[in-house]
Amino acid sequence: MSLKAIFLNCTLKKSPNPSNTEALIQKAVDLYEIAGVKCKVIRIIDFKVVFGNSSDEGEGDDWPLILNEIKDSDILILATPIWLGDKSSVCKMVIERIDGSTSEEDPQNGQYPLYNKVGGVLVTGNEDGAKKICADVLFSLNHSGCSLPPNSMAYWVGTAGPGPSYIEAGGEEHFFTNKNVRGIVANTINLAQLLKETPITTNLKEIDEKAKQESK
Amino acid sequence: MSLKAIFLNCTLKKSPNPSNTEALIQKAVDLYEIAGVKCKVIRIIDFKVVFGNSSDEGEGDDWPLILNEIKDSDILILATPIWLGDKSSVCKMVIERIDGSTSEEDPQNGQYPLYNKVGGVLVTGNEDGAKKICADVLFSLNHSGCSLPPNSMAYWVGTAGPGPSYIEAGGEEHFFTNKNVRGIVANTINLAQLLKETPITTNLKEIDEKAKQESK
Amino acid sequence: MSLKAIFLNCTLKKSPNPSNTEALIQKAVDLYEIAGVKCKVIRIIDFKVVFGNSSDEGEGDDWPLILNEIKDSDILILATPIWLGDKSSVCKMVIERIDGSTSEEDPQNGQYPLYNKVGGVLVTGNEDGAKKICADVLFSLNHSGCSLPPNSMAYWVGTAGPGPSYIEAGGEEHFFTNKNVRGIVANTINLAQLLKETPITTNLKEIDEKAKQESK
Amino acid sequence: MSLKAIFLNCTLKKSPNPSNTEALIQKAVDLYEIAGVKCKVIRIIDFKVVFGNSSDEGEGDDWPLILNEIKDSDILILATPIWLGDKSSVCKMVIERIDGSTSEEDPQNGQYPLYNKVGGVLVTGNEDGAKKICADVLFSLNHSGCSLPPNSMAYWVGTAGPGPSYIEAGGEEHFFTNKNVRGIVANTINLAQLLKETPITTNLKEIDEKAKQESK
Repeated sequence: MSLKAIFLNCTLKKSPNPSNTEALIQKAVDLYEIAGVKCKVIRIIDFKVVFGNSSDEGEGDDWPLILNEIKDSDILILATPIWLGDKSSVCKMVIERIDGSTSEEDPQNGQYPLYNKVGGVLVTGNEDGAKKICADVLFSLNHSGCSLPPNSMAYWVGTAGPGPSYIEAGGEEHFFTNKNVRGIVANTINLAQLLKETPITTNLKEIDEKAKQESK
Repeated sequence: MSLKAIFLNCTLKKSPNPSNTEALIQKAVDLYEIAGVKCKVIRIIDFKVVFGNSSDEGEGDDWPLILNEIKDSDILILATPIWLGDKSSVCKMVIERIDGSTSEEDPQNGQYPLYNKVGGVLVTGNEDGAKKICADVLFSLNHSGCSLPPNSMAYWVGTAGPGPSYIEAGGEEHFFTNKNVRGIVANTINLAQLLKETPITTNLKEIDEKAKQESK
Repeated sequence: MSLKAIFLNCTLKKSPNPSNTEALIQKAVDLYEIAGVKCKVIRIIDFKVVFGNSSDEGEGDDWPLILNEIKDSDILILATPIWLGDKSSVCKMVIERIDGSTSEEDPQNGQYPLYNKVGGVLVTGNEDGAKKICADVLFSLNHSGCSLPPNSMAYWVGTAGPGPSYIEAGGEEHFFTNKNVRGIVANTINLAQLLKETPITTNLKEIDEKAKQESK
Repeated sequence: MSLKAIFLNCTLKKSPNPSNTEALIQKAVDLYEIAGVKCKVIRIIDFKVVFGNSSDEGEGDDWPLILNEIKDSDILILATPIWLGDKSSVCKMVIERIDGSTSEEDPQNGQYPLYNKVGGVLVTGNEDGAKKICADVLFSLNHSGCSLPPNSMAYWVGTAGPGPSYIEAGGEEHFFTNKNVRGIVANTINLAQLLKETPITTNLKEIDEKAKQESK
């Protein structure tokens, strides 16, 4: 069964500026493609994504196009640089827009659009902050409906303080990062295939109804 | 196929003191048992769990017994109260001990003991802090090998400032919390069954080998 | 000695939409003005602030104007709504831009522009997330040079789940929040006066030099 | 005016095991002592500190002794290793106990015991997690009454993945860390002297009274 993966690159830098985060994404793309997974990479800052918390903020908002690409994919990877120990503002904007999609419930079972999709996170920074970002992004994806296979993350960071970033520092040959990129690729494919064959069937509308009965 | 769920209650209060977190756990236990899932609840503070980061810190350490129970389960739920907007120190101690288990790799495929188990989190507090804790706990479980189904969390918190806790405030009849407890129970069962029938097969030893070849 | 306070409202909603965060800001403004502190409130989304990590991202970037207002103030309060348990993307964008100012070192002592200014944070959300945001914002302000008096934060959140926001819920009459607003106002004034009379004199250039001597 | 600094080392390892965190603490102690500040270092795990959220959990609890040392100091530095991208469980336990002290209000002005003390944080880890910990610890100290001078933090971390810790990696000669240790020492002394000469006078009892009048 053929799978699609979408990567949202949340760098602050517009194309054609080089992006360290894009270099790490490329590592994953190469592996997905060897495994027969179709990949699409979107650099958010090159589009006009509007601040907001709905699926469509009206005229001039490019988000609906991107959301359609997400809905059409099986695997969703948020990729972000580190700024002051935290995900980029572009990444947080994307999280807010994704969260907005949870109001588009399936009329039959109440599931959000991201149900039965698999999530993951990639992070690069010249230093410290990756694990906090992984926690925040994975939580947000899970909250918006994504499932997560084991170790659904990979990152590169340098030693404490200012210093070279991923590309310049030779992060592309960093064993720990490469191992984890291989792990997230293998595990997301594994779980995405499983969920494509046997989707989660939870009926959130029924749950809603039962919860109402036991609550005030 | 019969499933087992284990709950680690990370309250700071020893039995027989009432625990708000235990009351929320009970909500989930009732639903799991209706679905035929066997449940075990362990209040960590009643045992002698030693600070450390290995699976066995030697004589007088009760953790190995608890870890065996975890290994014997399909679903692992960490449950914690909120203290100053963060998980309890007991919860953090448990996370450190669980993390220690990642060094016990399967000799065939290198997977950690928590691979193919499903994780989740329950939180109670009189106010603010639940989502941060969910992010931290879900990250830690995912990092240690657990898979996560959609919305693998449920919590109750009151309005800003000091106030009654879950039991006293009537949280047991709070619709939003009850809905989410039903969600985490249904979704963890769904994914746990899936992974029991079709486990994730990723060979981490092979990945390690390939990553070495492309790295310095 | 006369003091100035600046509030950066990081709501996602443009004027003239009502902003719950602005309503909480107003509580603080009223108290500052009674105490003789001049106040300026800037709703970031009404300006064209560009993504980036420098003090000036070039033509069409309104940030330099706002940064000048910050430099002209003694007290800097970041105010943000909660989205998915986290600060707004606008708030994170502001943090990135403020962080960019740390490269504008004083030629004499190497201090950043925010040295000897006092920081604080205000948060509103319909539920959970305030303390995490306070931690992130206060860390960022401290990292960028601000000093913090005791309890330099105030927030309002409702009980778990969707529900009315600050204004609609009558948060303006919530004792805990009002007490904390009074606390942050009194304490920031106190410390700002102290630092205006007796600035921190640390010479970061000397420190840099000495650190070089003991390092590789 | 003579100042005292207290360091709480939150390593998981009992004496006489070497502690990387202690090695970083020593860097700061040396600088404080040159400046005439008396220092006391307490390795929490060597004492019997009980889980809880009060200033005294009864017989066999060593915390009251440690809390007295804190009350007797002007500068309070929490120092912690990184475990799975987060502060140690011992550090979280200390934060819970410090938070318990906020109920011991001054009968005159309602201030907590840590008012007019200055806080700071030191972190070591073989990789990633320092800034998140700085945010959490500084928030907790500020919430419990401490003031914070600019950049009240210093840390060392290595590059992504397992690797040597502070001592073994030669972190003691790492320029960025050494510069920041010098910064936190100079700035905490500066602010502690200021607050010793001119304490924050905010009357929290009055504030409480006024807030009650404007609230429901």
